[in-house]
Amino acid sequence: MNQEILLKKRPTGKPSLKDFEFADIEKPKPKDGEILLRTKFVSVDPYLRGRMRDEESYIPPFKVGEPIESGIIAEVVESNNKNFKKGEFVNGMLQWKKFQTSNGNGLNKVDNEKAPLKAYLGVLGLTGMTAYLGLKKIGKIQKGETLLVSGAAGAVGSIVGQIGKIKGCKVVGVAGTDEKIERITEKFGFDEGINYKTTKDMKKAIEKACPDGVDVYFDNVGGEMLDAALPNMNRYGRIINCGAISLYNETETQTGPRVEQYLIKNSLTMQGFIVRDYVKDFGPAQKRLAQWMEEDKLNYLETTVEGFENIPKAFLDLFEGKNKGKMIVVV
Amino acid sequence: MNQEILLKKRPTGKPSLKDFEFADIEKPKPKDGEILLRTKFVSVDPYLRGRMRDEESYIPPFKVGEPIESGIIAEVVESNNKNFKKGEFVNGMLQWKKFQTSNGNGLNKVDNEKAPLKAYLGVLGLTGMTAYLGLKKIGKIQKGETLLVSGAAGAVGSIVGQIGKIKGCKVVGVAGTDEKIERITEKFGFDEGINYKTTKDMKKAIEKACPDGVDVYFDNVGGEMLDAALPNMNRYGRIINCGAISLYNETETQTGPRVEQYLIKNSLTMQGFIVRDYVKDFGPAQKRLAQWMEEDKLNYLETTVEGFENIPKAFLDLFEGKNKGKMIVVV
Repeated sequence: MNQEILLKKRPTGKPSLKDFEFADIEKPKPKDGEILLRTKFVSVDPYLRGRMRDEESYIPPFKVGEPIESGIIAEVVESNNKNFKKGEFVNGMLQWKKFQTSNGNGLNKVDNEKAPLKAYLGVLGLTGMTAYLGLKKIGKIQKGETLLVSGAAGAVGSIVGQIGKIKGCKVVGVAGTDEKIERITEKFGFDEGINYKTTKDMKKAIEKACPDGVDVYFDNVGGEMLDAALPNMNRYGRIINCGAISLYNETETQTGPRVEQYLIKNSLTMQGFIVRDYVKDFGPAQKRLAQWMEEDKLNYLETTVEGFENIPKAFLDLFEGKNKGKMIVVV
Repeated sequence: MNQEILLKKRPTGKPSLKDFEFADIEKPKPKDGEILLRTKFVSVDPYLRGRMRDEESYIPPFKVGEPIESGIIAEVVESNNKNFKKGEFVNGMLQWKKFQTSNGNGLNKVDNEKAPLKAYLGVLGLTGMTAYLGLKKIGKIQKGETLLVSGAAGAVGSIVGQIGKIKGCKVVGVAGTDEKIERITEKFGFDEGINYKTTKDMKKAIEKACPDGVDVYFDNVGGEMLDAALPNMNRYGRIINCGAISLYNETETQTGPRVEQYLIKNSLTMQGFIVRDYVKDFGPAQKRLAQWMEEDKLNYLETTVEGFENIPKAFLDLFEGKNKGKMIVVV
């Protein structure tokens, strides 16, 4: 009747299905003040890899033998809480369970008449917030500047590039297949795309695609892409260190060219970006993104996978670049 | 009668006396609107190494066969410019010449009754501006925070630490001899000092000296010190990348642990700091520093070297850590 997905062991290097375990559990009964939730849509995201490590971070690590959690849209199927009605939908950090109870703390109601429910996990959820607030708070992008985006065909990257175009920037995206490059330039309106897998000298390729240099680099991947971007940054350039998917599965500390002389030479800023630091800005950000969607200025792609049993597999596929835009599991 | 010091060739690795050349030249005559200057005090600084490279930077590189320039205090010995009188002293970026003419652009008059003239090359000059504005604009230091400083016994570092104490911070300094450590703790009031040359594990030593973590790291040296500081940074920590003297003489690109995951994990900021970006803030900064000097809250040390002929040697000694505080040549 009910089922959950536990972290069986901490992955070494690239996670595999063996790191997860399914367990049959009882369907809980909501106590006074609680609601019973049925999981509808599950967001799987690269950053979850970090929580599988046993180290202090901005969110506590997952515990071995306990359920994993991520962004989830759920339906209220029973309510003993006056703030929630049966049939309403909520969005929040919830556990990978088919059914779970909650006292409602940290949950936001979502309205399936305003936008498709899944959008609240993507463009109107943390994905959209990340793109919008990263560019606004750290990138401080200005009309006429050049914006470089890595992971450009991914959930965050594709929104970053579109916001760059809305703001009047030249936008260059980097992704790993020709199909993705076509997608970002054709569907999402990027000015240019670079396939890093078929490009030998990324530094030169960026230089060619960005003849006026790079003012803002929105980095979702880290590693060698960052190395290639740094020498192309303009004076007072800003680098939004949003993700480092190229390093998440590495088991040893990775080395690369030292960055400090680039920073000093051009008064560059590199800043780590965690969207949860900006919770107070989510309201206006969501409003702005919803407006752009309505005006048809903002498109998004989703890859949906069916079935609760496929959540771990969907998560693993992120590291193979199999998703087109936001990866969502439909339960 | 007159003499100048030219860049003979671009240094490879550590600069040597062979990279400089002395030439006898004529004493110039000031034209209408010009003044004749006699060099009194010459500032030699690590950043000049960067200008000896043939690469674009925030200031153009020195040219081979042409005089080097740096911060200089000079006396007006003849004046055909109504804004300057014979016997006045000026401060500015001037050439390594015993005598030179100027139209007065970019020169500031300095008053030897308010402070010793040499102070305008140090604590009241770019050195003091660097310490004060770096901490204020990028470090944004707050009372009760922990401030870590590398190159702590140097001209900038020793002022940084004292400002940290004035602001109510815990201040830990890193330097390369026990004598320097004694100086920063005894004379400059740092809470603790770490001798990096006799310390095996700098990461652990910083952890021990900063049990509450590091909120602001003022980095004058880069390289392995930065590697050791990064894992000790607190959430929302700020790193002022002011200098990288440990790398200036390297001939090949240096590698080190990648920084991006530290930045993301703790929402850190690393920012390259060039004091010339903040020229409009120099006035109030100088006033504040002068006030602290008057209140005896701010001490400084100088190493003075006598003689125009010793300017290149004084510059080279910076890379051996031979200076105590600001290095100044008295002509």
